[in-house]
Amino acid sequence: MKSGLPGKIDTSCLTWEGQQFQGKRAIVEKLSSLPFTKIAHSITAQDHQPTPDCCILSMVVGQLKVDDDPIMGFHQSFILKNINDAWVCTNDTFRLAIHNFG
Amino acid sequence: MKSGLPGKIDTSCLTWEGQQFQGKRAIVEKLSSLPFTKIAHSITAQDHQPTPDCCILSMVVGQLKVDDDPIMGFHQSFILKNINDAWVCTNDTFRLAIHNFG
Repeated sequence: MKSGLPGKIDTSCLTWEGQQFQGKRAIVEKLSSLPFTKIAHSITAQDHQPTPDCCILSMVVGQLKVDDDPIMGFHQSFILKNINDAWVCTNDTFRLAIHNFG
Repeated sequence: MKSGLPGKIDTSCLTWEGQQFQGKRAIVEKLSSLPFTKIAHSITAQDHQPTPDCCILSMVVGQLKVDDDPIMGFHQSFILKNINDAWVCTNDTFRLAIHNFG
């Protein structure tokens, strides 16, 4: 999650657990500051759609494990846009799953 | 969920539990065919962002109760676009929450 991400641009938005960040610098700063040393993801479902403006909207639902913490569910929605032959992430929203269903 | 939705257009996409539908007609047909008589929603978290193409990206996480079924969690991401002074839903992705976390 910290590396290997598509680039950001100055209008890119990140909403992280309700906290809003805009612009490449603020987003990279936030992602770089996340306090873990290792993370593992398991994707349960992923859906992708073309948008009218030639972007891709993706919604991902899965589980993650951070360091030695318990496994947690997460939801993430993001938009990728092709600008000058490169894919950039213009929008990104992340939430941990907080409900329990028995 | 069946009524009161923003309009759809011919390029609108709906992904419903992994099933893909495109175009106003197919989407309305799918939503109209959902087999319940009453539904109640409770929204846990909602995040909204502007996109570079003047749309709004929303991610909603919550719980719903359909008829007399048990309460279920859901995730929904959608994009609204203003076309000719009306908001239309160009993209919509819906998933029930299927994990249990103890």
